[in-house]
Amino acid sequence: MSSVRPLFVVAGVGNGTGTGASAARLFAQKGYKVALISRGPESLNKLAKELSQQGGEAAGFAVQDYSPNSIRSAFAAIRSHYPPSSSPLRVALFNAGHGVWKPFLEITDEEVHNSLDINVAAAFAFSREVITEFLKLGFEEPSEGGQGGARKRGTLLFTGATASIRGNVATSAFAAGKHGLRGLSQSLAKEFGKQNIHVPQSIIDGVILTDRTKTRVNNPDWETNLDGRLDSNSIAKTYLDLVQQDSSAWTWEIDLRPAHEKW
Amino acid sequence: MSSVRPLFVVAGVGNGTGTGASAARLFAQKGYKVALISRGPESLNKLAKELSQQGGEAAGFAVQDYSPNSIRSAFAAIRSHYPPSSSPLRVALFNAGHGVWKPFLEITDEEVHNSLDINVAAAFAFSREVITEFLKLGFEEPSEGGQGGARKRGTLLFTGATASIRGNVATSAFAAGKHGLRGLSQSLAKEFGKQNIHVPQSIIDGVILTDRTKTRVNNPDWETNLDGRLDSNSIAKTYLDLVQQDSSAWTWEIDLRPAHEKW
Amino acid sequence: MSSVRPLFVVAGVGNGTGTGASAARLFAQKGYKVALISRGPESLNKLAKELSQQGGEAAGFAVQDYSPNSIRSAFAAIRSHYPPSSSPLRVALFNAGHGVWKPFLEITDEEVHNSLDINVAAAFAFSREVITEFLKLGFEEPSEGGQGGARKRGTLLFTGATASIRGNVATSAFAAGKHGLRGLSQSLAKEFGKQNIHVPQSIIDGVILTDRTKTRVNNPDWETNLDGRLDSNSIAKTYLDLVQQDSSAWTWEIDLRPAHEKW
Amino acid sequence: MSSVRPLFVVAGVGNGTGTGASAARLFAQKGYKVALISRGPESLNKLAKELSQQGGEAAGFAVQDYSPNSIRSAFAAIRSHYPPSSSPLRVALFNAGHGVWKPFLEITDEEVHNSLDINVAAAFAFSREVITEFLKLGFEEPSEGGQGGARKRGTLLFTGATASIRGNVATSAFAAGKHGLRGLSQSLAKEFGKQNIHVPQSIIDGVILTDRTKTRVNNPDWETNLDGRLDSNSIAKTYLDLVQQDSSAWTWEIDLRPAHEKW
Repeated sequence: MSSVRPLFVVAGVGNGTGTGASAARLFAQKGYKVALISRGPESLNKLAKELSQQGGEAAGFAVQDYSPNSIRSAFAAIRSHYPPSSSPLRVALFNAGHGVWKPFLEITDEEVHNSLDINVAAAFAFSREVITEFLKLGFEEPSEGGQGGARKRGTLLFTGATASIRGNVATSAFAAGKHGLRGLSQSLAKEFGKQNIHVPQSIIDGVILTDRTKTRVNNPDWETNLDGRLDSNSIAKTYLDLVQQDSSAWTWEIDLRPAHEKW
Repeated sequence: MSSVRPLFVVAGVGNGTGTGASAARLFAQKGYKVALISRGPESLNKLAKELSQQGGEAAGFAVQDYSPNSIRSAFAAIRSHYPPSSSPLRVALFNAGHGVWKPFLEITDEEVHNSLDINVAAAFAFSREVITEFLKLGFEEPSEGGQGGARKRGTLLFTGATASIRGNVATSAFAAGKHGLRGLSQSLAKEFGKQNIHVPQSIIDGVILTDRTKTRVNNPDWETNLDGRLDSNSIAKTYLDLVQQDSSAWTWEIDLRPAHEKW
Repeated sequence: MSSVRPLFVVAGVGNGTGTGASAARLFAQKGYKVALISRGPESLNKLAKELSQQGGEAAGFAVQDYSPNSIRSAFAAIRSHYPPSSSPLRVALFNAGHGVWKPFLEITDEEVHNSLDINVAAAFAFSREVITEFLKLGFEEPSEGGQGGARKRGTLLFTGATASIRGNVATSAFAAGKHGLRGLSQSLAKEFGKQNIHVPQSIIDGVILTDRTKTRVNNPDWETNLDGRLDSNSIAKTYLDLVQQDSSAWTWEIDLRPAHEKW
Repeated sequence: MSSVRPLFVVAGVGNGTGTGASAARLFAQKGYKVALISRGPESLNKLAKELSQQGGEAAGFAVQDYSPNSIRSAFAAIRSHYPPSSSPLRVALFNAGHGVWKPFLEITDEEVHNSLDINVAAAFAFSREVITEFLKLGFEEPSEGGQGGARKRGTLLFTGATASIRGNVATSAFAAGKHGLRGLSQSLAKEFGKQNIHVPQSIIDGVILTDRTKTRVNNPDWETNLDGRLDSNSIAKTYLDLVQQDSSAWTWEIDLRPAHEKW
């Protein structure tokens, strides 16, 4: 990596135990500066502090909600904190999401709108900021071992789920949101590949071990079975692999599930 | 068909030359009473009048927009005009849609929200009204030639598009909406199949001949090539086939394209 | 239908209680002459006799196996029995199949080859005969109610299964065969649509009630639950719908499952 | 990596300029012993020699054809050359394939059988040998940076293509073969995940730069446009990423295409 350290922006870091936080840790370790966007200022600051203590450079940018305006304000604050000239944005991860699992007839108008606003409309606003930044950049410097250089302006990652490709009983609102996000991600991958912007998305097929799912599943065997649930650090590892792909062989979609998952 | 004539409700009839209008004509012909929901009161009334003159029973229910509240008001008006006891709702078609085709960076927040509101959130509100009605009904009477009767409470049809399954350059907002609708439709098909409610959706893969596309394409050869563009009457025929399927063999998704379409 | 009665050819009629036989009965009823290809001469003759007694015109063409040569011989015999000039081939259904459900390590070389030979290679030979015949024909006469005539040379139907789109534990050999068939069917649909040849395929997602499955499932409740298993007559009805689609709106793929199926 | 160096087996190395050969080079570099299976003894020996000269340990195992018997003989020879006790098989890549691109009516019986034999039946025989070996092994030693160890018995990789998921004009025989292979690979992934055997497959969507495609495309601009064609070394890099995934987050399918590919 050259002397100019690139910037990694992630939206959606929950309470610091899931995919967004794991990705932030891994990219910080790899030398990226980190900008964290999330709704919970406390978790944000805690994670930023943790990353800094481990030698990284990180800052949190709390948002009240995931409205387009809030996202644009967050990016303005990021650009002010991390001037693009010295902190070029190279990797962005849209990991925000809003799960609704309920029988269809119990879902309210508001829950439908929240799902569409956070899973889809926020992703549009986030992508607009990110792609606009990417288009101002030249290509990244070649990564070690790459074939002829990375030839990338940047990578815009989306976290998907089984609900991105399959609706199911009690997932109508979540599936509508995640399907919508997938339509966006494929459109962007096709529109901006020509300009050397890489837009991969994951299909996370299974339950990730986080503080929240620990409580929900409430089963110590499940927690300790390394092959039975997703580890967010393992997901982050694959996100890094995608970022390091050569422009001769880019991935749009990749599924990830535990070895023992029934699917 | 028994002495009680069933009700067909369609949302989205454009100016009367597309899929929604063709379906209204065909179901009217088959003995259904027809309720038309759309934003343009003039087109609505013109179509309702046309159907009535041909011996059908039809009424228009104009909405100002496709917000959930507007949709609920329309259904309240429909129930008042067509009391469920004498006009049981048996077929509903959500054909409303909002196409946006633009380079990603030119799409505004408002266009994103319109696409999600009309293509997805409106479909949630529409489906809630329809499924609530269906659940109050017993099974339809057996159709002639069916195997052991139709055994259906009702059919909720969705009109999809290529953008339902594939994002593309310049289709991000439309693809997000249509993908979202598909996630909803599959969820509903799975959740309510057990209660004998049938939820099929089409993937219309090609351009339908309508007043609007005639103007846009502006090519008489295209208009007269019966194998090169979709005819909305042909789509309606397939919608009727789906409605008449036995509950032993229901379809969720069906693609439709002209014989000569390159795909 | 005009004075020249068209020919329907089906390969794979089992013991006369499944999809192939139901389709033969329905198309016979609709005025088609019927040619039955299958490996069991007794079932063939029994079904041909049944169709004839009900006023149809039907003949069986037994094959020893589904090798390309056997299929070509069967078609030569069919052409001799039903001269194309007076019995133009208009609908062909490839319904032959070979199911293997076994743990992967127990599957033998021979079972793999049988699956590929019957599910795929036989379909190639069958399609070659059918498409060659279709290309010699002009368009069908318009069907009643069609938009501008059927404009079809003919329809080549394939019966698919869940295994056409999804591999699963213990289905490796069957899934390989059915996936392969799907690759063929989509290629043909694209290559010959331009010449007004229609190639639809079904995805049968569930268990069809036949003599064989009755014995296997061995559960009277299952047999009598009209919403819980597929009825081959209902499948045949949908096959007829596909054959009658206008060339302005043709289907390639359609899924079929019982209303109560969990999927 | 521990003192026992693991074995990498690849079937299909062409003339040494494609995916199979690139993977062999990369895994040799990473410390794997290499066994090469292919039909051309000269290319095999040349590549084995190249790998040895660069400090690797490699041997070629020529086969006359890709019949199940030939594949079993090759594996017997491999086990004799590389005793499993000291050279445990950990990664296998089935990269053999047989492309047929021809108008459907010109494809011969033999071409259909070749496509099914090489693309599918050979993969069954290869997989049987590989999985049988894997099941005899304990878990791999943890890789550096993995979460809780690799917890893998081994990885069985398949090379797929666009034709794995889409039939097209003039690809019927190739699509049938590649679809069939995909059905196998998904079945294996589901059946053996529970036993910690990882079965990923790629969808290569574009043309790979090889000696053969250079001649076919015959366009120096295409050759030098690093974003316009696939580089087999880049594909190999992603194969290594898949092999190094933690068992908490395994991929079944991943698409790969050049940044500038239109899709």
